[in-house]
Amino acid sequence: MSVELTIDADEAAVELAQFIAHRIERAGAGGAVLGLSGGLDSAAVAFLAVRALGPEQVWPFILPYRTSRPESRRDAELVARKLQLESTTLDVSAQVDSYFDSVGEKTPLRMGNKVARERMSVLYDHAKARGGLVLGTGNRTEWLLGYTTLWGDMACDLAPLGGLYKTQVRQLAVALGVPKQIVEKVPTADLWPGQTDEGEIGVSYQTSDEILHLMVDRRLSQSRIVALGYDPAAVRRIRDLMRTSAHKRRLPPSPPPPQTPRA
Amino acid sequence: MSVELTIDADEAAVELAQFIAHRIERAGAGGAVLGLSGGLDSAAVAFLAVRALGPEQVWPFILPYRTSRPESRRDAELVARKLQLESTTLDVSAQVDSYFDSVGEKTPLRMGNKVARERMSVLYDHAKARGGLVLGTGNRTEWLLGYTTLWGDMACDLAPLGGLYKTQVRQLAVALGVPKQIVEKVPTADLWPGQTDEGEIGVSYQTSDEILHLMVDRRLSQSRIVALGYDPAAVRRIRDLMRTSAHKRRLPPSPPPPQTPRA
Repeated sequence: MSVELTIDADEAAVELAQFIAHRIERAGAGGAVLGLSGGLDSAAVAFLAVRALGPEQVWPFILPYRTSRPESRRDAELVARKLQLESTTLDVSAQVDSYFDSVGEKTPLRMGNKVARERMSVLYDHAKARGGLVLGTGNRTEWLLGYTTLWGDMACDLAPLGGLYKTQVRQLAVALGVPKQIVEKVPTADLWPGQTDEGEIGVSYQTSDEILHLMVDRRLSQSRIVALGYDPAAVRRIRDLMRTSAHKRRLPPSPPPPQTPRA
Repeated sequence: MSVELTIDADEAAVELAQFIAHRIERAGAGGAVLGLSGGLDSAAVAFLAVRALGPEQVWPFILPYRTSRPESRRDAELVARKLQLESTTLDVSAQVDSYFDSVGEKTPLRMGNKVARERMSVLYDHAKARGGLVLGTGNRTEWLLGYTTLWGDMACDLAPLGGLYKTQVRQLAVALGVPKQIVEKVPTADLWPGQTDEGEIGVSYQTSDEILHLMVDRRLSQSRIVALGYDPAAVRRIRDLMRTSAHKRRLPPSPPPPQTPRA
């Protein structure tokens, strides 16, 4: 069985660039800040932003942490160079490490979350200083699975890729001319050594995206999806990730306002 | 003309404590983390949380920055002592300063935002380590006026006071037994020396809350509100703050998913 996730990538590129241009203009912003990780998503957003705004109004930041892989930075610089963007590199290790020095204990997950939130904080500081908006680089697969740090990489002013599954971002990136070595690399959040997205999610992006499409867009039940030939464990895993991450797709809940008598 | 913002504070206390207890239980969380600033809102949330969960499950953090006023910390400690809570004090200056050292330029606003986001990041790190949720301390006035740092103090798992105007939080705090010196102090975010909420908003909380109530809850037009006797400049200011902060009350926008052909 095959699930159709192919998009008209040229059309998507036009629409997403228009979205960025329209929102930047409506906000009266002078440009767009984004973090370049060296990965597929941020490369695609940088290419879209340059189409939308021109290179002068796109301000990429490369924000390595001590344990980030050197090839991440190298690929981020490749994107900036290819687009003739002036990038700013700021190592976030000092801030993150000075926090954990005082705390003692740390785990890869806690470090990863701290780094992701520090990057958000740095991007917003520079956006404020320059009068720009922050472009997020999250895609629909990450959003639906909650594969993101709450108030970290999901926190932005605009999320141009939020409607595209990861496999669709890859199609878009090819259409945009993102360098092949970035399109083909193994996706990783690079928050700790050896991390890969698919290792953490436990299901390949191809399969995740197909299951998400059947579950979310076509509203099929788990059993229908399994009947189509998908691994029951993979279907359950996707469903579980969606359920346990629902709070990441909502603003914080409050009780309703109390009744007050009329004046 | 008088606008009725009086609530049944005892009833509100019962309902908000139930809200906290219910959400913590539903999330399977072991307790609640919150930042104690020494101000009214965080004191009220701490009192509610102890009612909801008991003191063992409430984990307050005092997160001073170098320029924070000493009385802020003293009042935060007073709240913890009064509720018999074990508080943790962690100075965030090292992280924040090491960032600005590398950046050079800084303004009070940029510093304030960085501190607010660092506090969020620290609270979430400890919540993750202890298996708790983060209680936000924002109120409805701040939320509607956007008087908050995006992805900073507005970022939390639950916002118990989100339905109460500031003047209603004060009523609630009295009913909860929050110490008088905290109930009566001049509200300040204390992000830089001399800052007061009302100075920044430009309108007193009493007047802001009345105008917001008329505008939001009773859906009166600006001209109707002015006709009721409110200062036109104050009404305009409140309307402008609401409009320019609308993006703080939404998740980041994305374009819709593209059409894909059916399999």
